[in-house]
Amino acid sequence: MMADISKLRVNGSRLWASLMEMAEIGGTEKGGSCRLALTDEDRVGRDLFVSWCREIGCSIDIDDMGNIFARRDGLQSSLPPIAMGSHLDTQPAGGKFDGVYGVLAGLEVLRTLHENNVETKVPLEVIVWTNEEGSRFAPAMMSSGVYAGLIEKEFAWSRKDVNGASLHGELERIGYLGPTACGEHKIGGLLEPHIEQGPILEDNGNTIGVVSGGQGQRWFDVVVSGQDSHAGSTPMPSRKDALVAAAAMVTGINRIALENAPFAVTTVGELLVKPNSRNTIPGEVAFSIDIRHPNDDVVTKIADEIRTLCETEAASNSVSVELDEIWIKPTIHFNEDYINAIRTSAQMLGYSHQDIVSGAGHDACQVCEVAPTGMIFVPCKGGLSHNEEESAEPEHLEAGCNVLMHAAIQLANN
Amino acid sequence: MMADISKLRVNGSRLWASLMEMAEIGGTEKGGSCRLALTDEDRVGRDLFVSWCREIGCSIDIDDMGNIFARRDGLQSSLPPIAMGSHLDTQPAGGKFDGVYGVLAGLEVLRTLHENNVETKVPLEVIVWTNEEGSRFAPAMMSSGVYAGLIEKEFAWSRKDVNGASLHGELERIGYLGPTACGEHKIGGLLEPHIEQGPILEDNGNTIGVVSGGQGQRWFDVVVSGQDSHAGSTPMPSRKDALVAAAAMVTGINRIALENAPFAVTTVGELLVKPNSRNTIPGEVAFSIDIRHPNDDVVTKIADEIRTLCETEAASNSVSVELDEIWIKPTIHFNEDYINAIRTSAQMLGYSHQDIVSGAGHDACQVCEVAPTGMIFVPCKGGLSHNEEESAEPEHLEAGCNVLMHAAIQLANN
Repeated sequence: MMADISKLRVNGSRLWASLMEMAEIGGTEKGGSCRLALTDEDRVGRDLFVSWCREIGCSIDIDDMGNIFARRDGLQSSLPPIAMGSHLDTQPAGGKFDGVYGVLAGLEVLRTLHENNVETKVPLEVIVWTNEEGSRFAPAMMSSGVYAGLIEKEFAWSRKDVNGASLHGELERIGYLGPTACGEHKIGGLLEPHIEQGPILEDNGNTIGVVSGGQGQRWFDVVVSGQDSHAGSTPMPSRKDALVAAAAMVTGINRIALENAPFAVTTVGELLVKPNSRNTIPGEVAFSIDIRHPNDDVVTKIADEIRTLCETEAASNSVSVELDEIWIKPTIHFNEDYINAIRTSAQMLGYSHQDIVSGAGHDACQVCEVAPTGMIFVPCKGGLSHNEEESAEPEHLEAGCNVLMHAAIQLANN
Repeated sequence: MMADISKLRVNGSRLWASLMEMAEIGGTEKGGSCRLALTDEDRVGRDLFVSWCREIGCSIDIDDMGNIFARRDGLQSSLPPIAMGSHLDTQPAGGKFDGVYGVLAGLEVLRTLHENNVETKVPLEVIVWTNEEGSRFAPAMMSSGVYAGLIEKEFAWSRKDVNGASLHGELERIGYLGPTACGEHKIGGLLEPHIEQGPILEDNGNTIGVVSGGQGQRWFDVVVSGQDSHAGSTPMPSRKDALVAAAAMVTGINRIALENAPFAVTTVGELLVKPNSRNTIPGEVAFSIDIRHPNDDVVTKIADEIRTLCETEAASNSVSVELDEIWIKPTIHFNEDYINAIRTSAQMLGYSHQDIVSGAGHDACQVCEVAPTGMIFVPCKGGLSHNEEESAEPEHLEAGCNVLMHAAIQLANN
């Protein structure tokens, strides 16, 4: 065992090489990856991960949602392990790093400990969570959700892809319907490294994001109802144009986020016009609203302001509006010990770092319901993700992996 | 022959009864009609019209676009006839009056002259133009367009419906591929009565619209290009939200019409968002712009203002924009003699009336390229048209028909 564990560093080149090798499985022409959950490509990627883990002596457990637990034993093997990990499945036109980085950074930590003969008090594990993306089988973050008791396993098993194949059938087909009931493989906690999928670290020139938690979130479906009429023969004052009203709402929803800077984000991502004909005044517009902020009270305040805005704009445009709140997700606060382990590791390693709130959902945001959890963000170029051009710097990935290793050692030896 | 022709009046009840009888052909549950061009329903409607015309001694000519010319001879039968008419085809969920009123008002004029033994100097005709609506075979105003030399006959014949049936084949199938080459049946002029399809006459409490012409019109296709990104992890200042930019454009396009009151109308009728996903910031929005005004210079000025607006809003929202002008239609000015004949008839009959510009396109707007043309508008309830609830008052329809008769007599005896 090394005399001074604080001098231990991961092998950044090996991490990068593993990321590039994994990216070739389902590799796309534009340099991304298409490894949809439980496809043949996903199976090949899982098999490669498992073979890498076995090479360094890990034992493998698989649960009946296909979650993979690769274990490096500790001095006290009966204690629950500190886990690291994320997911290997990708978007249809996904990048090389989203999820994959979290899994292979965990693997690189185990490889580094293995070659340096470093032992930890409690075991360490790397987890591959099944179907984080939800692209083939909705919803997203599915198997970490089942693990955390947030999604019923029978419901998850019954989900079908567009060709009618069920998740349960596909788990069986690719050989990843494991013997352990999902949720019974207990962990002491989870560290999930991930690319930020946003531009904040890059803009601030920071290498490490110490993730304090996840934003609170509300989703609305809005329907604006006016009156279809002829674009040529209906004078402006007689119109009940649902799109003109909706446009004022979109503008206002954007303004309300700016008024709640710097943390508020609001998005109208979906919008459909009826009858959507060039020479007919739109009689109906349906759109979505996504509101997020790290403080639940502010989320509520923004939602109230948006409701008032929509009603005011409807009235002044002679149309009616209905807002249907379809989802509320409270803010997530990660475990203070885990946040501190990440922050002190970044400090000890001399990396520039900042606290950050996760804008996206991650497996860690589900698992935190049942185990202490922390996340480490590293920058990605331009904040671009869910895109074949997703890109991250090798030195940032290496830095995040070193933070992961030292946080894991600290928590495992506590 | 009547001593004082100015005392002659049409039979409003008979006109109404014929409208209601025609509406039953393809009648819908909600009280409208579905008589798409060259369907079996259209054939039954045409056959009924032809039988009504034969009952009063008319001769029938049909051209090779299926246009029907029902002729009541004049004292000088070699002179080109004054024609009246419109179309019998409807929208899929059409009303009882759009087009049909123009045809059956023409028939009612001939019936009135017939039973009162009134002779005119030149012959009178009632025309049924094929496929005005364009719902089954695009484009609209097709056979009046071929007649006026604006559309190639071979192109029109080749047009197919959604099931692949060609217009030529359907003309043949229903027995309305006539022997006369379209355009060779010459007319001295055309009077087209029509419901307004807008609210102006109703709002002003006027019975008759003396139509001076048609609006100038320009169509643009606009594409706003930003950047897709994650709705949760992309802070507001980093966004390139194509929908927020497009919303500002929609608002501005509406404002520019209001600044050019009372005649300008602008409409964004079509709008499509990509990728149209609830939790993704829209990377692209495509939309249409329809600009109309009775003065071509104002249409140009509005188009220039809209182009500047779109470029300004694109710049201030960090997106790019492209405007593609896909269609220009100059203003139409109907024949002064025809306009005067309509106005003086309305005055003589004591009906409240006003000059008006047609917002919609009509067969008369095509035929005016090759013959003097005028249009008579009557109010329709709430300006609603292209709708099964389209509604008009019997006394207004009767008044329009009386104006048609006296204008036609005046022009035919000139």
